[in-house]
Amino acid sequence: MFQKAIRWHPPSYDIRVESVPVPQIQHPDDAIVKVTLAALCGSDLHIYRGHAGVEKVHTCGHEFIGEVVSLGSNYGVDSAKGRPTLYYHLKVGDRVVSPFTVNCGECSVCRLGYTGRCPEGLLFGSPSLEGGQAQYVRVPKAGGTLFNLSDPSTWSSSMSKDEKEQALIGLTDSSLLMLADILPTGVFAALQAINHPKVAPVITGRPWPLCFSPPLEGPGNEVRLNAEDKVLTVAIIGLGPVGVCAAISMLDALAIRQVPFRIVGIDPVEARREKMKAVYTTIVQAGEGTGEFVVLSIEEAREKVEDWTGGVGCTTVLEVVGNTSALSLAYDLVRAFGAVVSVGVHGALPLPFTGRQCYNKNVSFDFGRCPARAMFPLAFDLLVKRQDVFGGIGEPASLIDRVVDFTEAAESYRAFDKGEVGKVIFDPWK
Amino acid sequence: MFQKAIRWHPPSYDIRVESVPVPQIQHPDDAIVKVTLAALCGSDLHIYRGHAGVEKVHTCGHEFIGEVVSLGSNYGVDSAKGRPTLYYHLKVGDRVVSPFTVNCGECSVCRLGYTGRCPEGLLFGSPSLEGGQAQYVRVPKAGGTLFNLSDPSTWSSSMSKDEKEQALIGLTDSSLLMLADILPTGVFAALQAINHPKVAPVITGRPWPLCFSPPLEGPGNEVRLNAEDKVLTVAIIGLGPVGVCAAISMLDALAIRQVPFRIVGIDPVEARREKMKAVYTTIVQAGEGTGEFVVLSIEEAREKVEDWTGGVGCTTVLEVVGNTSALSLAYDLVRAFGAVVSVGVHGALPLPFTGRQCYNKNVSFDFGRCPARAMFPLAFDLLVKRQDVFGGIGEPASLIDRVVDFTEAAESYRAFDKGEVGKVIFDPWK
Repeated sequence: MFQKAIRWHPPSYDIRVESVPVPQIQHPDDAIVKVTLAALCGSDLHIYRGHAGVEKVHTCGHEFIGEVVSLGSNYGVDSAKGRPTLYYHLKVGDRVVSPFTVNCGECSVCRLGYTGRCPEGLLFGSPSLEGGQAQYVRVPKAGGTLFNLSDPSTWSSSMSKDEKEQALIGLTDSSLLMLADILPTGVFAALQAINHPKVAPVITGRPWPLCFSPPLEGPGNEVRLNAEDKVLTVAIIGLGPVGVCAAISMLDALAIRQVPFRIVGIDPVEARREKMKAVYTTIVQAGEGTGEFVVLSIEEAREKVEDWTGGVGCTTVLEVVGNTSALSLAYDLVRAFGAVVSVGVHGALPLPFTGRQCYNKNVSFDFGRCPARAMFPLAFDLLVKRQDVFGGIGEPASLIDRVVDFTEAAESYRAFDKGEVGKVIFDPWK
Repeated sequence: MFQKAIRWHPPSYDIRVESVPVPQIQHPDDAIVKVTLAALCGSDLHIYRGHAGVEKVHTCGHEFIGEVVSLGSNYGVDSAKGRPTLYYHLKVGDRVVSPFTVNCGECSVCRLGYTGRCPEGLLFGSPSLEGGQAQYVRVPKAGGTLFNLSDPSTWSSSMSKDEKEQALIGLTDSSLLMLADILPTGVFAALQAINHPKVAPVITGRPWPLCFSPPLEGPGNEVRLNAEDKVLTVAIIGLGPVGVCAAISMLDALAIRQVPFRIVGIDPVEARREKMKAVYTTIVQAGEGTGEFVVLSIEEAREKVEDWTGGVGCTTVLEVVGNTSALSLAYDLVRAFGAVVSVGVHGALPLPFTGRQCYNKNVSFDFGRCPARAMFPLAFDLLVKRQDVFGGIGEPASLIDRVVDFTEAAESYRAFDKGEVGKVIFDPWK
């Protein structure tokens, strides 16, 4: 049995649609998923451009949604009952979405929710694991990795099982595909910032370090925080799909907590800025949040932050690009005692800061990959809530630009790399 | 009027006791404090060794306790009523301890509790402000800076005003002097780690990111955390006085939260390791904490962390040294998805990490100076609780090695720099 797959060839910029064998179960924990849709992601471009040191021809893509067509022998058996729920409950025919990396779901790393760093973890669409831009994909450790849309009792949520089932009726595959990477990564960025100890005074309205403890007795020597002190100032550097998701998640978190804000979204590419503006307009019309939200180029943003904060800088900066100049900009824009959250994928260059710069600004950095599987419950709730943004295709406020067939694979990679199109989804069966 | 002061002369290693004018009020917000005791701190050694690029002769020292002998015209007047409490309530004769930097107490930075980065901030014992190793010291912005031990109603606490007054009866000046820098800095390090979002799963016993939200409905796909997952593994790099205070604060925080722990204290100097062991023995005998605490050299510590965690690494690492090799060791010892808290004072070298190293380990770094004045209420409570450690002088578990007069100043700097003595306090009147 053969299938069509989008394959990368070394050294760079060489994308071909080829006929390759349909993957088979290799391990009793495997599942084979028939892919209904697969997306192209900004981080696919590291390999595409030949920057990742990869030499092996392989199937691309780490964002996919589909249907289980085959399961290994470890599924549905009594010995699966102590394992993550899906080892017992996953069935052929179930509709599933996968995070961009494999995780076993049962080691200490996974139990703690750090699923993006599971020692069994493999990245789809890399030399170590064939990707999802194909008609079929093999999912190792599927009982820990997959998210089963056919059985809402297998994930926790702020919604009841009935509410989840009701919500699922209206959710398209293209919308649910946002769970594979970009939406959980955006939520990850926002959550780290909102929960950072250096951000706590603004969120709680109580000064550091009293924001962590039950109220103490006595008046203290402090002057109370005024309304301006409680305004969270945020810069989001990079307005690709993940940056927009980070903004959506941040706006949602601030609305829930009733924290007033000033947010600047920053990107040198005008098309991305326009997308972000359209998304924000949609959210504001839905009545979310109390604050100011602007979208600017880099130099305009420097001036705006200077103007907003009198030169002090932002409480927190989300870095959603993944290069040295974005990190340097984040340092410049963050306040003394602020937090930089970096979810960009970084390369081999040293961090562009001295120890003294870090000490003198009391700066914090959070780096790293989203533990996507662990983020799914929160990301799902946000996906349902924000169907005005995630539900559409090709509209001004849609994150998805177009759905194409595999004959457009090479051209789609080229155009995406050049910034000529936004998020592209492949339909392997069209 | 002249006084004795310990003065630094360029280029390095040149400490002299000189007769200099008694400082006078220069600004209506100033206070003049008669110093009863002043301490020598590890960070004084940056200037002492000539590493700080300083050329100006100046009075040393940023840790002092004393009595107010003169106040500027802004004190006790009606216009002081909207300002930090002490602008109205501070009186000549009050017993006060100062943090190591000045802070106004009323700008936005101070209101948020980031007092170590007040734009009016000056470091005592630096070219910009004469230090406290003298008979008298001028304290700018004293109403925001000082902590008034004579009026416990002017600071908040977990204790009532009566309990604070009762506690103060037993507290010596040498013990209270620990508030100036080392104790709040240690508490700062521990608090940042305990409250870091990446540490939250271990502290709360709930996986990331569900540790931040109210419990969601449904079982989820997760396997529950086991007892071992909930053990906090900590490395403390550097066991000088601040490192020991960080350990004390960490042990206290974990005992309050009933979090089981494995902590390794690390220092290449045997005398420091022995001090840390004696302090821990004292704390354990007082019944604090449930866990394992070992004190080791660097190579032994690497093996111990490997052994404890199966190569995974520590949940959090406190870096209390302030150089590149300590930061590199912190990176090596921290787990993927762990938090490095650095309170060491760093120099001009670049951070010793690439972006890829940071991304691939999902590591977080918190840098910077303790906002000492903001930390005083929590540090005071811990000072009272741990008089078994902070109350003594020259005993095995005492942080203070000796109290000497100014004739021993030059020799004390030399011996402290060589690691031949622990914390030294100067009595300017002996």
